[in-house]
Amino acid sequence: MSGDGESLWAGLVVIGDEVLSGRTQDVHVSWFARHLGERGIRLGEVRVIRDDPGEIGAAVEALRFRYAYVFTTGGIGPTHDDRTIDAIGAALGVAVVEDELILSAFRERFGELTAERRRMSRILEGGRSVPCSLATAPAICWGNIYILAGFPRVAREQLRAVLPELRRGAVVLSESRSLMLGESRIAGPLSELSGRHPGVEIGSYPMEPEAGVYETVVVFRSVSEDLLRAAVGEFDGLQLG
Amino acid sequence: MSGDGESLWAGLVVIGDEVLSGRTQDVHVSWFARHLGERGIRLGEVRVIRDDPGEIGAAVEALRFRYAYVFTTGGIGPTHDDRTIDAIGAALGVAVVEDELILSAFRERFGELTAERRRMSRILEGGRSVPCSLATAPAICWGNIYILAGFPRVAREQLRAVLPELRRGAVVLSESRSLMLGESRIAGPLSELSGRHPGVEIGSYPMEPEAGVYETVVVFRSVSEDLLRAAVGEFDGLQLG
Repeated sequence: MSGDGESLWAGLVVIGDEVLSGRTQDVHVSWFARHLGERGIRLGEVRVIRDDPGEIGAAVEALRFRYAYVFTTGGIGPTHDDRTIDAIGAALGVAVVEDELILSAFRERFGELTAERRRMSRILEGGRSVPCSLATAPAICWGNIYILAGFPRVAREQLRAVLPELRRGAVVLSESRSLMLGESRIAGPLSELSGRHPGVEIGSYPMEPEAGVYETVVVFRSVSEDLLRAAVGEFDGLQLG
Repeated sequence: MSGDGESLWAGLVVIGDEVLSGRTQDVHVSWFARHLGERGIRLGEVRVIRDDPGEIGAAVEALRFRYAYVFTTGGIGPTHDDRTIDAIGAALGVAVVEDELILSAFRERFGELTAERRRMSRILEGGRSVPCSLATAPAICWGNIYILAGFPRVAREQLRAVLPELRRGAVVLSESRSLMLGESRIAGPLSELSGRHPGVEIGSYPMEPEAGVYETVVVFRSVSEDLLRAAVGEFDGLQLG
């Protein structure tokens, strides 16, 4: 737990026709949520959008002013449907340029560079590449925008490389309680409890009822251990059911 | 295949702090994509947002003018963190009212109604409830907005009930080819092919490389079987590698 007592917030833009078509199951969201969370950065919003320059530009533009950081995944390969960098450049009014760092890493590894490799060495003018453990796949940063790969394994390595340079926020602590009751039975007392503990987010998550057996998980979240403990303690003392 | 030759587009708003916190893996997106797709309705955008009235209202307002349909999942239970209906009502400037259809179904099943049941009988004024196979969990409709449950099983039954009343669009047909080549090797020819077939979306999806073995899946999508066949046929005739 660290930071100035408040969490930072981030937005995530998942660029992927293949997710929207139902062909591929997204696996970025939960991974980003957990790893950013460990640094006190909460995911405030995710947009899954098409591989379309206008959509990509609009989503990044909308989120970069609302959140401390914006991450994008996908659309940075060498093929015609990889449009992320050009789209963000156009939305920002910033030129797309080749990055010396990436070019020299590519040259070292591949020798003479093909048009495709040159294409993959591009960043946004005024931005930079962030080297990661996968030498030929740096993340691309411009301001508070981080442009990452669509491959889960590559995106994760890139996020690992980026994390140390992000500001730290207050880590959200959480505690949960499971009750063998339907949500309706606890709605009233939970609402009152929530009103008395404004520094604690209290979520009620009913489980799939099985053969008439009901279960509800109540999750408490706060950046303050004291506030969290007070709310959970009061909840534990309630006579429910 | 049916409709007027064009697909319809829908937006999906997943309301869920539990998805954004990484606690829960979203399973709505791929299911909605596939089942809407069978009716010729494509998912154009998904927003995963917090259980926050302002966020919920803003997302629905943004999407309802852009897409033929907007679906929301989550936040319609009886507890204090279930804010979807009030939030959408406030954004639309529409009152929240009790629905006679839901009230009478509840009375038949539960007798005298608790405050929680009354709360769960609410819809938006001028809208309606759409009965589904789960008698006590109708979908809620207002204009082109469909408000569904967060529970996957319930949301799926609700969507099944709603599907027959949605307009039909042209179903997207797809075909794919797998090549044991990296993306860079096919980027050039694929880009030219894509330029010659504007009625066909051609996506290139590299697979995770394993021990130096590369594979790329090329997916062709079109509402026209003829255009699809022409593009795939030309691709099959290319000398790649």
